[in-house]
Amino acid sequence: MRELPLEKMLENVRRKSPLIHSITNYVTANDCANMLLACGASPIMAEDIGEAAEITSLCQGLVINLGTLNQNKIPSMLAAGRRANKLGHPVVFDPVGAGASKLRTQTALQMIKEIRFSVVRANYSEMKALMGGSEIGKTRGVDADVSDQITAENGEEAADFARRFARQTGAVAAITGAIDIVADADNVYSIRNGHPMMCSVTGTGCQLSALTAAFIAANPDMPLEAATAAVCAMGVCGEIGFGRLRAMDGNASYRNYIIDAMYHLTPEQLRKKARYQAD
Amino acid sequence: MRELPLEKMLENVRRKSPLIHSITNYVTANDCANMLLACGASPIMAEDIGEAAEITSLCQGLVINLGTLNQNKIPSMLAAGRRANKLGHPVVFDPVGAGASKLRTQTALQMIKEIRFSVVRANYSEMKALMGGSEIGKTRGVDADVSDQITAENGEEAADFARRFARQTGAVAAITGAIDIVADADNVYSIRNGHPMMCSVTGTGCQLSALTAAFIAANPDMPLEAATAAVCAMGVCGEIGFGRLRAMDGNASYRNYIIDAMYHLTPEQLRKKARYQAD
Amino acid sequence: MRELPLEKMLENVRRKSPLIHSITNYVTANDCANMLLACGASPIMAEDIGEAAEITSLCQGLVINLGTLNQNKIPSMLAAGRRANKLGHPVVFDPVGAGASKLRTQTALQMIKEIRFSVVRANYSEMKALMGGSEIGKTRGVDADVSDQITAENGEEAADFARRFARQTGAVAAITGAIDIVADADNVYSIRNGHPMMCSVTGTGCQLSALTAAFIAANPDMPLEAATAAVCAMGVCGEIGFGRLRAMDGNASYRNYIIDAMYHLTPEQLRKKARYQAD
Repeated sequence: MRELPLEKMLENVRRKSPLIHSITNYVTANDCANMLLACGASPIMAEDIGEAAEITSLCQGLVINLGTLNQNKIPSMLAAGRRANKLGHPVVFDPVGAGASKLRTQTALQMIKEIRFSVVRANYSEMKALMGGSEIGKTRGVDADVSDQITAENGEEAADFARRFARQTGAVAAITGAIDIVADADNVYSIRNGHPMMCSVTGTGCQLSALTAAFIAANPDMPLEAATAAVCAMGVCGEIGFGRLRAMDGNASYRNYIIDAMYHLTPEQLRKKARYQAD
Repeated sequence: MRELPLEKMLENVRRKSPLIHSITNYVTANDCANMLLACGASPIMAEDIGEAAEITSLCQGLVINLGTLNQNKIPSMLAAGRRANKLGHPVVFDPVGAGASKLRTQTALQMIKEIRFSVVRANYSEMKALMGGSEIGKTRGVDADVSDQITAENGEEAADFARRFARQTGAVAAITGAIDIVADADNVYSIRNGHPMMCSVTGTGCQLSALTAAFIAANPDMPLEAATAAVCAMGVCGEIGFGRLRAMDGNASYRNYIIDAMYHLTPEQLRKKARYQAD
Repeated sequence: MRELPLEKMLENVRRKSPLIHSITNYVTANDCANMLLACGASPIMAEDIGEAAEITSLCQGLVINLGTLNQNKIPSMLAAGRRANKLGHPVVFDPVGAGASKLRTQTALQMIKEIRFSVVRANYSEMKALMGGSEIGKTRGVDADVSDQITAENGEEAADFARRFARQTGAVAAITGAIDIVADADNVYSIRNGHPMMCSVTGTGCQLSALTAAFIAANPDMPLEAATAAVCAMGVCGEIGFGRLRAMDGNASYRNYIIDAMYHLTPEQLRKKARYQAD
C-alpha cells in the first residue's frame, strides 16, 4: 500500500490557510468555525441569496450542510454550489439528517443532482438515503441507525457501497462511523481512528465536513487522499482529546479538547497516529 | 412525603435514550444539544414547516422554545406541537422572554391555547405574563424581574400560582428561580438545588427545558415527577459544576462543567443530592 | 495625558448591569451572551420585525452585527436602530464582512446613513469598505486583509483615518487589530493589549462589540472613553486568558479562558494592565 502524504497535506492546510465558506446549521456553526481556525484555515459563514455566490468566489472551498435546514437557504446553497463548480473550487456536502424527513432527503438529492461535489461526508444511514436504499425515517434523527453502524462485519459491504456511491455521483464518499470509509470510484480507504465518545459531542460530523473542505482546498489535486487525511486528523484529535479527559470531564470538556488537539496537531503526530488502510 | 423514584427516572433516560426534537433559538442550541447528549438522550433540531411535524413523529419528545423568536417559525411550532399531541408525545414549552414584547407574549399565549403541553418551564415573570398577571415589559429581557424572584417569603404564593397555572393549562408548571416550583393541578414540589452563578451562564434555562423533555419522554406516565427530577438533576449538576471551579474559572468554564456533570451524573448521586419537598 | 477612569467605568458596568439588545449572527451569539454576562451586563437577542424596536426600548444599549447577514433582518436592524436613536440609547455597529460582498457593504452603508451610531467597531478592511476606500473583495472574509493590519508603521495613517471616519459619521471609530485605534472627531487613543492568538478564536470581535455596548450603556456620557475601556478590557482578558493556557490547551480552551477572565476582571486589574495612549 502506498503511504499517504499526510504530513504534507496538513502542512499545506497550515501554509495556505484556505478561506472556507460554510452554508450550515446554527447548532454547530461556532464549533465548525473554531475547528477551521484550529486546523489553520479561515471560516466565513454566509447564506443570504444576495451574497452566497459572491462569498463563494472569494473563498477556496465551500461546505453545504443541511442541519437545521430552512427552505429559504436552498437557493443560496444551489447558487454557491454552482459558482464553486464553475470556479473549480472544492465543495463538500454534509446531508445532515437525510432520510429523517422527505424535505431533507429530497433536498439532498437535489443537491447531488445539481452540484458536483468533491466529497459527500455523512453517516451510513444518510448515505443510504441518498442512494434510495433506505426508507424514510430510518435515519435516527441525525445519527445513523443501529443497523447502519460500520463494523468489521459489514465493512466490505460498506466499502462496495461507497465505491458505488462515488461512481454514481462523481464525489468521494466519506462514510463515518466506528470505522470510517473513504472511497472514490476505484479506491477505498478504511480508517480506524477516533473514539466512541465523539458521538456524545454534538457537531463532530459537521466539524469533520468543514475540515475536509479545508484539506481539499489546500490539496486540490488529491481529493480522495485529502478527505482520508481529514478523517484521520479528526479521529486522531478525538483520541488525543480523549486521552486528556480527567475524572470530571465530560462531553463539554471533550468538545473543547478535540478542537484544542487540532490546534496543536503536528504533521508528524498525524502521520504516526493515523490508522488507515487501502482496501 | 413519598420519595420520588429519581434513580429509576434517570436510568430510564439513559436506557431509552429518547430522541428529542427542539424548535429553539440559535443562542443556546449547541448547549441544549450537548446537554441532551450528556443526559443520555439524542437531539435533533428542525424548524422548517416542510419537515417540522414529520421530524416530531420520529421523536419521543418535543421542545418549543421562543428564544430569538422568528414569526416564520410559529407555523412550524404549531404543526409540530399538534403532531406531538396527536401522537401522545410529551411537549415542553419554554416561553423565553414572554412579557418582554407583545410578540413573545401573544405567541406564548397562542401556543398555550393551541397545544397541550406536558410542562411549561419558565421563570416567574414569564409565567405571570402567560397568566395575564404582569404588564408587558416587566420581564427583564430573558430574566425574571427582581420582584419576581421566588424566595422563602413568596414561596407559598408561587406554589399557589403554579397550581392555578397547571389547572388552567393542563400542563405541569415548572417555575425556576432561587427556589424552583414544580406543580400540577393538585401537587407541588419545591426544589432547592442549583447555584446562583448559573444565572451567569446563558442558556441554563433552555438546557433545563430540553432535559425536562428527555425525562418526560423516558418516564411518560409521571410528568410531574419527571419534571421535578429534571429540575433536581439540573440543579445538582449546577452544584457539582460549581464545586469544580478553580480560581480562574468563570462562567465559560462553568458552562462546560455543568454539562460535564450531567454526563457523569449517576442515579445514586441524583438521589443523594436532590433537595425537593412536597408542599 | 489624562488618565481614563477605567476602574470607575468597569464598576459602572457591574453596578448598573445594562440590558443589551443584540441583533447578531448565529455563529458567535452564544459567546457574546456569555461575554455580556461575564462583564456584568445582561443579554437579549431578538430580531423579528414584530418585536425588534420594542425589545430595544426595554434595553439600555443595542448592538447591530452583520455576521451571517440575512436580508430579512435588515428592517429589524433599522427599526431597532431608529428606536434606540429616538430614546438616546447607545448603538454599536459591527459591520462584519463589509467589503466581502456587495450586500454586506451596501447594508453597512445603509446602516451608517440611517442610524446614528455611538461606536462602529470593525477591522481596518471593514472600516475602509465603509469609507469607500477599498474595492469589494479586499476584506479577507471576516478578517482584515494582510495589507490592512495596523502596525507601528501605519499607526498614524490609521489614526487619521479613524478621526476622519468619526467626523464623517459622528460615531466613535474603534478599529481593532494588532494595535487598536479608538477615535472620535478630535481625539485618538491607541491600545496595545491583547494577544495574536485571539485571531484563532472565532467571535472575539463580536464579543468586543457587545462589550463596547455594555460599557457605553453604563457610561453614557463618555463614549470615546468607554469604547477605549472596552477595547482595553477585551485585550487584557485576552492576555490573562493566554497566560492561563497549559500545554495542550488550544483555541477552544482559550475561548473559554477569555470569557472567564472577564468574569473575574477587577477594576484594579483593568487599570494596571491597560496599555493605551492618547495620540
